[in-house]
Amino acid sequence: MNPEGLWFKEIFTDNLLFGYRVRKVLFSGQSKFQKIDILDLYAYGKTLFLDDKIQSAEIDEYVYHEALVQPAMFVHPEPISALIIGGGEGATLREVLKHGTVEKAVMVDIDGELVDASRKYLSEWSAGAYENPRSKLVIDDARKYIFETDEKFDVVISDLTEPLEEGPSKFLFTLEFYKKVHEILTDSGVLVVQSGSAVQTYNDLAASIYVTLKELFNFVKVYTVYIESFQMLWAFTIASKSDDPETIGLDDLENRRKVRGVGNLKFYLPKYHRGLFNIPRYLDERLPEGRVLTDDNPYIWTA
Amino acid sequence: MNPEGLWFKEIFTDNLLFGYRVRKVLFSGQSKFQKIDILDLYAYGKTLFLDDKIQSAEIDEYVYHEALVQPAMFVHPEPISALIIGGGEGATLREVLKHGTVEKAVMVDIDGELVDASRKYLSEWSAGAYENPRSKLVIDDARKYIFETDEKFDVVISDLTEPLEEGPSKFLFTLEFYKKVHEILTDSGVLVVQSGSAVQTYNDLAASIYVTLKELFNFVKVYTVYIESFQMLWAFTIASKSDDPETIGLDDLENRRKVRGVGNLKFYLPKYHRGLFNIPRYLDERLPEGRVLTDDNPYIWTA
Amino acid sequence: MNPEGLWFKEIFTDNLLFGYRVRKVLFSGQSKFQKIDILDLYAYGKTLFLDDKIQSAEIDEYVYHEALVQPAMFVHPEPISALIIGGGEGATLREVLKHGTVEKAVMVDIDGELVDASRKYLSEWSAGAYENPRSKLVIDDARKYIFETDEKFDVVISDLTEPLEEGPSKFLFTLEFYKKVHEILTDSGVLVVQSGSAVQTYNDLAASIYVTLKELFNFVKVYTVYIESFQMLWAFTIASKSDDPETIGLDDLENRRKVRGVGNLKFYLPKYHRGLFNIPRYLDERLPEGRVLTDDNPYIWTA
Amino acid sequence: MNPEGLWFKEIFTDNLLFGYRVRKVLFSGQSKFQKIDILDLYAYGKTLFLDDKIQSAEIDEYVYHEALVQPAMFVHPEPISALIIGGGEGATLREVLKHGTVEKAVMVDIDGELVDASRKYLSEWSAGAYENPRSKLVIDDARKYIFETDEKFDVVISDLTEPLEEGPSKFLFTLEFYKKVHEILTDSGVLVVQSGSAVQTYNDLAASIYVTLKELFNFVKVYTVYIESFQMLWAFTIASKSDDPETIGLDDLENRRKVRGVGNLKFYLPKYHRGLFNIPRYLDERLPEGRVLTDDNPYIWTA
Repeated sequence: MNPEGLWFKEIFTDNLLFGYRVRKVLFSGQSKFQKIDILDLYAYGKTLFLDDKIQSAEIDEYVYHEALVQPAMFVHPEPISALIIGGGEGATLREVLKHGTVEKAVMVDIDGELVDASRKYLSEWSAGAYENPRSKLVIDDARKYIFETDEKFDVVISDLTEPLEEGPSKFLFTLEFYKKVHEILTDSGVLVVQSGSAVQTYNDLAASIYVTLKELFNFVKVYTVYIESFQMLWAFTIASKSDDPETIGLDDLENRRKVRGVGNLKFYLPKYHRGLFNIPRYLDERLPEGRVLTDDNPYIWTA
Repeated sequence: MNPEGLWFKEIFTDNLLFGYRVRKVLFSGQSKFQKIDILDLYAYGKTLFLDDKIQSAEIDEYVYHEALVQPAMFVHPEPISALIIGGGEGATLREVLKHGTVEKAVMVDIDGELVDASRKYLSEWSAGAYENPRSKLVIDDARKYIFETDEKFDVVISDLTEPLEEGPSKFLFTLEFYKKVHEILTDSGVLVVQSGSAVQTYNDLAASIYVTLKELFNFVKVYTVYIESFQMLWAFTIASKSDDPETIGLDDLENRRKVRGVGNLKFYLPKYHRGLFNIPRYLDERLPEGRVLTDDNPYIWTA
Repeated sequence: MNPEGLWFKEIFTDNLLFGYRVRKVLFSGQSKFQKIDILDLYAYGKTLFLDDKIQSAEIDEYVYHEALVQPAMFVHPEPISALIIGGGEGATLREVLKHGTVEKAVMVDIDGELVDASRKYLSEWSAGAYENPRSKLVIDDARKYIFETDEKFDVVISDLTEPLEEGPSKFLFTLEFYKKVHEILTDSGVLVVQSGSAVQTYNDLAASIYVTLKELFNFVKVYTVYIESFQMLWAFTIASKSDDPETIGLDDLENRRKVRGVGNLKFYLPKYHRGLFNIPRYLDERLPEGRVLTDDNPYIWTA
Repeated sequence: MNPEGLWFKEIFTDNLLFGYRVRKVLFSGQSKFQKIDILDLYAYGKTLFLDDKIQSAEIDEYVYHEALVQPAMFVHPEPISALIIGGGEGATLREVLKHGTVEKAVMVDIDGELVDASRKYLSEWSAGAYENPRSKLVIDDARKYIFETDEKFDVVISDLTEPLEEGPSKFLFTLEFYKKVHEILTDSGVLVVQSGSAVQTYNDLAASIYVTLKELFNFVKVYTVYIESFQMLWAFTIASKSDDPETIGLDDLENRRKVRGVGNLKFYLPKYHRGLFNIPRYLDERLPEGRVLTDDNPYIWTA
């Protein structure tokens, strides 16, 4: 049975609808860049929607954010500087700061209103990360930032929304952009990109990111994680200049954990690292069929 | 945007709704045991619902059925006889018959009307399996069958719906029942049980099946597979008398595939076998906390 | 509480949705002109939808069809011939035939597939009307029929779907069309037009039909009836050459009922005739503000 | 097409659902007596829901409140005192005060939290009525108030929610209660009761109020009004000690309007008075079949 009252409808495609029962609307607004809704859902607790698409939820934002950040951070032998592209909720920054080696964590998000609303209504997501003296928040277009910076970073984390036609993120998934990212990465640099859905019927973005990064990096691997509040298997692409992200030894990972004092992990542990890379056969066979994304022909997500 | 017209609502909990746009209603009826709907959905093609819960869909029934059947069949060194409990769509039987060693495959389902409707409207699911001379279809209560049979089986596959209060399957997940299953298994016998959702918020059934089978079998392992049409990570529990289902060598698996002439696999391949057992941390830590299910205190699924 | 399973969604506007629980899909198809769905709804029984918009339902098709037909038939002093434009379900024809004076009832509907499906699945609607020797069914464009016919009619009944951009009915609501209707009406001729919603926020069509007919007829009146299965107050416009449709005496009406042997009325009775013309103030004040519809500038319904 | 985002579901019955797209949640809370939601809907503007049932909406609260109040006020030859039972939004009080003869208007509502939320978020509803020196607001059980008061009133207006099993209003629709109302009415006293849905399939409450009041009053009449935001034809029962509410002369009504200086009417005018009493045939025939409601056997609304 299905109670009446307030519900939030999310339409993954014209043919598939998710309905979430709403306990409370915490914030609803339109920023310069997107529609922002922060709701308290009966099913998932506090939840962020951007342009009516679920972004992260109280019950499992730790799964998404640890899955995005921790493998890359652990793969790098000694991450001192990190750059986050997007990451408006602040939880990606929180995860980066768990590594004691990090001296500088820069987060560049285009939407200051989203960052402000998240700090206010989803304060557990950032959990004080912005106040950390090692953090630096930049409200700007990440493409502009990356093309203009003369800094170098050990780890770059791309935590962007899907590239929509009218959205600003579509030129942040292209060969030209990743070439510049490759340049500002240090010698053992690692890049990780949240790569969208990994399900059988929607995995084009993941395949295309994979193929595009293969043009530039020595090692490119895709791993998948089930995100309950997305109802989806999710893809992450990790690219590395000098080390294979999949086969790194468990002893090394455990040692880094100790040395860097990485505590408070709820999803990731070194012993689960390698298992993440066991992706389903359909995805395994599909990845090489992606296409190289370019500024002239970027990826546009359509439901 | 969300077109008007015919939709099917599935309510996983009071707080979470899935809506599927319907192209055509192929069959709708009430059997002696359950409500049966066979629909052609825009998102998933032909799809079976029992008591308004999705069971299997054209786009990925191969994922579910190969995931259920193939690991157990490959783990057994030489499966000659197999028993399927439930499996009304006929696709579980189809998968068993792919192994050339099999001489006898018995399927016991309580709902003859479901079997008939599936043969008629979902004929690709069984794909002629019932006509195979190695097959035997029994329409009966599987508990009664198992307690009365004097046959032995190499592999037993439990492909049942969730144990609802008023449903007949609740006594097919208990220690007493599994004890009897253990008895009718041969020395290297393997049992596999579809174990319901493996997501963070709903994994009680999986944990309890795991703990119950640990009472009886030398090796019990849980593996998970994402089923797109369920929107869920799904759990399967495999129990074996003599071999660890997880660590069996890839060479052995490949050799069995060749010897038995197992063709037409779309999801499973020996090289993916071990990867299936990489389960998420929350599930890994949760499994030992299940409880032993008994006839006096069976599992009852409530949304 | 809201049960799961099959539902039909109708969207009156982007902001307002009706959901009907479906017991059975009786027919679903796409004719040359429109999408046709005949469903058995829990709330309303058998129900016809055209292009996903509700048309008539078992519980109250008698309200709609008597409300459309009977006032016009009773207003005419002696209706011998009648022409129905549209009326695909056949119930409009059924109502006309109740008047013993009628010798010829012609129904012109463009969609033969709709007529066939209605006869088969909604047989109570037509109730044998097509087999009546006084009836003549013409499958053709009503505009073409009216411009080509050399017959005259006492009563013309316009029972058309809303004039959609891409639909064929938009030129059946114009001054040019009504001029021709006026010509083929006999001296005491009466025209009635189903005129769409009469609610405060959607009554443009009704007002425009009213104003357009005022150009041509001596008497034009609007009456309203609540149609439960539409969830709406509905407008009908009646135009007459020689008698005021509203003020006709009760004795006259009762006498006509007796003389013509009009039986089996469930909604209309002469004593309710005058009351129908009590329309809400907002509609009363709105009607004169409609615009004259022309072939160059017809009415196009947009939600 | 049906946009995603925030919607409010109202379930009239298990088989019929209304969905309203939400622009903004203005207030959501649980008072001691009921769930209160004040939403800004795209379709209807600001709207009040109690226990998830729509109560009144910006686009047409004037229709509901004028329809409830004005006929009774106009029927009384000189209303000096009025009592409102319920009426939490304050608009019923606003309507009463439009009559210059009124010296005292008492409103008794059990739910102070509802009154406060309405004053704050629906201030156009009360429009300063509470600040009017002729007004008196009492937060109390209306049954207790009426049984204890020694005042007399010219007009009593019952503006209550449907009598639900667990709600407090079920003993405010009984013969015993109305007997006491009759006692506190002056000699020409008039009572009006909002009587719920007047549609064909749900009119039991209206019929039972009608029959119950017939036990006590010389004149009892039912009138109906279509309320767009309810999607329903709505019933009101008016009972009078000395004058027939339906047949009162238009001149008298017009004269009262002038004398009392009743301005700012948007729905009601004397010339529409009599037309309100033209009710549909099914309701006309159904009313005498209601039952007398008593404290022992009150009306309980079930969807």
